[in-house]
Formats: sequence, C-alpha cells, structure tokens
Amino acid sequence: MQRRQFLKTAGLGAAGVAAAPFVSTASANETYTWDMVTSWPKNFPALGTGANDFARRVEQLSNGRMRIRVHGAGELVPALEVFDAVAAGTAEMGHSASYYWRGKVAASQFFTAVPFGMTTTEMNAWLYHGGGQELWDEIYANHNLKPFAVGNTGTQMAGWFKKEINSLEDMQGLKLRLPGLAGEAMNGIGVSTVNMAGSEIFTSLQTGALDAADWVGPYNDLAFGLHQVADYYYTSVWNEPTAVLEGTVNLDAWNALPEDLQDVIREAARASNLAMISEFAYRNAQALETLVEEHGVQLRTFPEDVMAALYESSKQAIQRQVESDEESRRVYESYSAFQEVVRPFSDVGEYAYLKSRDNVGA
Amino acid sequence: MQRRQFLKTAGLGAAGVAAAPFVSTASANETYTWDMVTSWPKNFPALGTGANDFARRVEQLSNGRMRIRVHGAGELVPALEVFDAVAAGTAEMGHSASYYWRGKVAASQFFTAVPFGMTTTEMNAWLYHGGGQELWDEIYANHNLKPFAVGNTGTQMAGWFKKEINSLEDMQGLKLRLPGLAGEAMNGIGVSTVNMAGSEIFTSLQTGALDAADWVGPYNDLAFGLHQVADYYYTSVWNEPTAVLEGTVNLDAWNALPEDLQDVIREAARASNLAMISEFAYRNAQALETLVEEHGVQLRTFPEDVMAALYESSKQAIQRQVESDEESRRVYESYSAFQEVVRPFSDVGEYAYLKSRDNVGA
Repeated sequence: MQRRQFLKTAGLGAAGVAAAPFVSTASANETYTWDMVTSWPKNFPALGTGANDFARRVEQLSNGRMRIRVHGAGELVPALEVFDAVAAGTAEMGHSASYYWRGKVAASQFFTAVPFGMTTTEMNAWLYHGGGQELWDEIYANHNLKPFAVGNTGTQMAGWFKKEINSLEDMQGLKLRLPGLAGEAMNGIGVSTVNMAGSEIFTSLQTGALDAADWVGPYNDLAFGLHQVADYYYTSVWNEPTAVLEGTVNLDAWNALPEDLQDVIREAARASNLAMISEFAYRNAQALETLVEEHGVQLRTFPEDVMAALYESSKQAIQRQVESDEESRRVYESYSAFQEVVRPFSDVGEYAYLKSRDNVGA
Repeated sequence: MQRRQFLKTAGLGAAGVAAAPFVSTASANETYTWDMVTSWPKNFPALGTGANDFARRVEQLSNGRMRIRVHGAGELVPALEVFDAVAAGTAEMGHSASYYWRGKVAASQFFTAVPFGMTTTEMNAWLYHGGGQELWDEIYANHNLKPFAVGNTGTQMAGWFKKEINSLEDMQGLKLRLPGLAGEAMNGIGVSTVNMAGSEIFTSLQTGALDAADWVGPYNDLAFGLHQVADYYYTSVWNEPTAVLEGTVNLDAWNALPEDLQDVIREAARASNLAMISEFAYRNAQALETLVEEHGVQLRTFPEDVMAALYESSKQAIQRQVESDEESRRVYESYSAFQEVVRPFSDVGEYAYLKSRDNVGA
C-alpha cells in the first residue's frame, strides 16, 4: 500500500508511474486487450489451463474492461523466449518459470525453487509477507518487467530414469533434463544436465538424447506420456520442493494501466496461485494412481548416499551463485534468513502433524 | 461456470438469481455498501485484519463500487451470533468459522477442520476442485447463506494447559475450551469441553473456569496473552490440521448483486485465503520464537497414549455425527473419499520432502 499512500500524500505518481486516482473516472470505459505468451503447449493441464484461468479471472474482475489472449508455446514465440518477448513488448504478458532465465538473470532462480529449500507455504509467505516480492520487482524492473506468482506446481518429483539408480555411482555420466540450481547441483555429482522446453522431453528420452528427465509431477508427466519412454519414476522431492509459476508484465504496459486494473492483475494472480496449488494436489494424486495402477509404473526413491550428495552439491551450487553475483547474494540472503525464521513453525506444525497422522494410523 | 453457461443459453436467470449480463451496463454505476460482522475483536491479528484485507480487496477490485464495513465481535452482534445475523440480513456478510454453528447445522463442522483429517492444501483442493464448495453452498442455502473460504489459520496447536499432561489419566476431568468435532473427541476421553468466544478465554483460564484452552496458534495466542495464565503450551496438531475461516453472504443480498461483483467477492475470498495462509505461516513462526525466547514458555507434546486415544475417539465422534445426521453423512462421504484420493500424493510429495529435508540436515 506504500505507493498508494504516496500518491495520496503527494498527489503525483513516481517517475514512470501513471497516477490513476483510486476511483478512476477518466479511464473507466477504456478497454485493454493484451497478449500473453507462455512456455506451455496451449491448454496444457494445470500450466496452460492455469494461464487461461488467470485470463478469465482478469476479464471477470474487470467486468470485461480487460481481456488477455493466451498463446501456447511456439504460437507467437518459442517456449523459452517468453522473458525476452515480454521485456521487448512483443506481448504484454508472459506465463513461465523464472529459473528458465538463469542465463540472463542469475538471481531469478531463487524465485522458482531452491533445492532442499522452502516449501510452497513457506515460499508464498516469503513472497507475500517476507520481502520476496519486493526483491523480485526490483530485479525484474531492470529488465522492463513486473513479476507475479501466478500458480505453483507444489512438490515436484525427481523424474523419469531409464535405468535404476542404486548408488551414487549409477548417476555418473547420465544426461538429465533439469533446470535451475538443482541442475547445477546434479552437475556437481557427475550428471550432465540440460534445460529444454517440456514438449521436447518425450522425443529426447525416446531417441536416447536424454537418459533421464525431470518435468513436473504425475499430472503433467502423464500428459506428456513420459512413462512410455522411461521405466522408473523417482519420486524423491529435493530439486523443487515448490515451483512458482511466473507471470510477467511488460513494465511500460503495467505503468500505463489504471490502478484498479493493476489491482485486478495482482489479485487475479494471487487467486490463480491458490487455485493451481489446489488443483495440482488433486490431479497429481489422481495421476499417480493412474500411472501405478493402469500403466504399471515403478516408483523409486534415490538411495540415501545420492540424497546426501545432492544436498552437499546443492549447497555448493548456491554458494557459487551467491559469490559470483551480487543480485543472487542479496536475494539468497533474504530467502535464507526468512527460511530460518519460518521453518521452526513448519516443523512443529505441518511436519509434526504429518508424522502424527502417520503414527496413529490415520 | 455452469450458471454462466446457463445464462448464455437461456437468456434467463435461475429462480431468485438476478440475471446480470457479463458486461453489466444497467448496474455499472450502482454502488453497494455492506456490513460484515465478525467473531473476532476489531483488527485482531490475522483474523480481524484478514477480514479488513478482504474488504480492501473487494473495494479495489470493484474500483470503489462496493464497500464493506468490517465490525468487530460485539459491535453489531456478539461473536457467536454471526451466522444468525447474516442469515437474517442484520448484516450482509460475516467472517467466522463454520464449526461454531454445530448446534444449528451439524454438518458445518466438516468445512472448518476434522481431527486427524486433511491438511490445508488437501482441504482447499477439496473445496475448490473436489466438490466441497458445492456441498457447502447447498447446505448453507437452506439457511439463506452463501459461504466462502476467506482465510485459513493453517495448523493449530493443541493449546494451553495449566498442568503437565504425562498420561491419558492426567486428562480426566479437565475443563477445556475446544470447538467442533475435536471437542466431541475430547469429551470421549473424559475431558469436559466448552466453546466460547476467543476474547473470553484469558479470563476463564485466570479464574479457573477453564483448566486448558485451545485458541489458534502462537500468533493469536500471544495476542491474547494466554502464556500469562497457563504454563504449558501443547503444540501437538491433531484437532485442527487446518482451519478454514468462513465468509458468509446473506443469500438475498448475494442474489441481488450483479454477476461481476459476485466474481469480485469470490476471487477476493480466494486471494484472501492464500494471503492469510501465508501470513500465519510467518507470524506464527515469529510468535513461537517470542513465546519461547522472551516469555520462557514450555513447549510440550501429548504422550503417545493420549494421541492414540484422541484418534480413536475422533473416529467415534465422526461416526456418531454421520449416523445421526443425513447432511453430515453426505458431507463426510465426500470429504473422506476425497481424502483417500489426495493423501497418497501428499505422502509421496510434501511429507516425503519434509522427512528428506530433515534427514539430510538441511
């Protein structure tokens, strides 16, 4: 609310910010039609449909004053060019994941997921109440973007492997699709990682260009048919204990919006975030059952030595990141300080409950 | 979306529903000022301020067309008369918790929390994607109300006890403040339970009218100063693994709203739900530290025999409820079927992750 208070006090907008009064009269009948480019196939379960749901919310909440046309990956721009397209104004909005932009903005990775880091609830607490959003805003403003959390996959699985992993040795030399800091951590234990658009994973596993691949979780993995090209599903959660889906708005387009439509986007994003978290919890559960019962998928977890090595390697990957990039240092400082505060209550609350529910046989 | 599709097809609203076209022109300039009565002291941390935040979102998203005046408990009606006041139209809206109305609508309890039942994410998945909201709508419509989840406390602690609990025997004859099905479960193991407004708990513990009390969690318990009148804080989560805060709208007022303002209320509720979940995760963590570090509070967990007895007693309390009330049977059937589907993914995802994070020493 600080900007609004400033506007009330000063009667003037900050540089580059259109100063719309709270009840806008001048622009009340102006309509906006925006394009949103995404990193997902059109209507892809939960990710693509989540982008559609966000657009529907914006249209409803604005009472038809704002319309967002959602485009699948490749329709206007390729899956992994969303950041550049929105920054340049090719489209006013994007829906993607921030860790895809690590090559341009190293610190962006901390706004999606940190290996062995915060859970979905902890992450949202940081973004909404712990200063995370403000840091994200500040860093993305340098790239002419305004970011929002517009969905979250919840916990992600470790992924699909063509052969069984019985020791750290078995990981050596594997070619794995895995983005972000977790990819770095895998590199550190001898795995060769690459990022690619989700739609390329199936063929890459099939042709042997990949030995293993992380995509999302049961619901999205089933949708791409990954169980048809790899026998073992490693469910170990380590790489993405949460995964924020990122909405980006071109900053010039954002600044030109009346304030009430900025509110519409902000709150539609927040509502879409919870809607997607809830949807994934349900659809992943259904899909996991389908994978096991109907497709005979073998569930596996990494051996303890692999998990321990991944933890050490994750810490080193984060450390290297933080030492080599000032923005990353600032973001991780905020992230880790918040994690230290928030986690004791997760342990005494959610984690203790899950243990109790298990112990009593509920 | 079914109602909207119906409107588009038939060009007429269902009985009692105002048929507002998608882009409303007739009522675009009509403004609404509503009263919202709550079960919390005005501006009470997270609960009262959460109601304020919801009202602010509605005002922003409606661009000033709708204003909601939030009233603390006792200002217009007492804390535990919110349901009746909104049903009767004394106020257009309420903010409370559905299990307070067990004496009027037994099935309402399942929409707040079930002992040893679903977590916050599982519960939201049921409400938004598993048919929970539709059942809640149907049952509350009989009482002239339209309900929404408008916040959630997350995991609640077992509460404050004046003496230490070392066995099931120590629970016998205690007088405990605890609402809902969990209160019933406590009765089943020899504890005498009562419900009362949160604001009465401190004095009741101080005077000895109560031996123990559950309120919410560290943030809210600290706000009432409960650590000053009971020495032991039992953190065991069993009674409320989640606790949905309920927004109610008088059904006549709801039906008279244009559809875009109905959308505003629905999505402001969803956004407020996530905002409050996130806020509690952070503020509870801070308050827990304050209670322990600054006030020397002794944290305790119930012995295993108490937890086992509470689990058995909870099952019996639910069983009695389901057998004696047809609405409760229908709601619990939906709830428990959903829990059976959704939980295996929680176990392989969130729970497995929390164990892994613990095991590797993160």
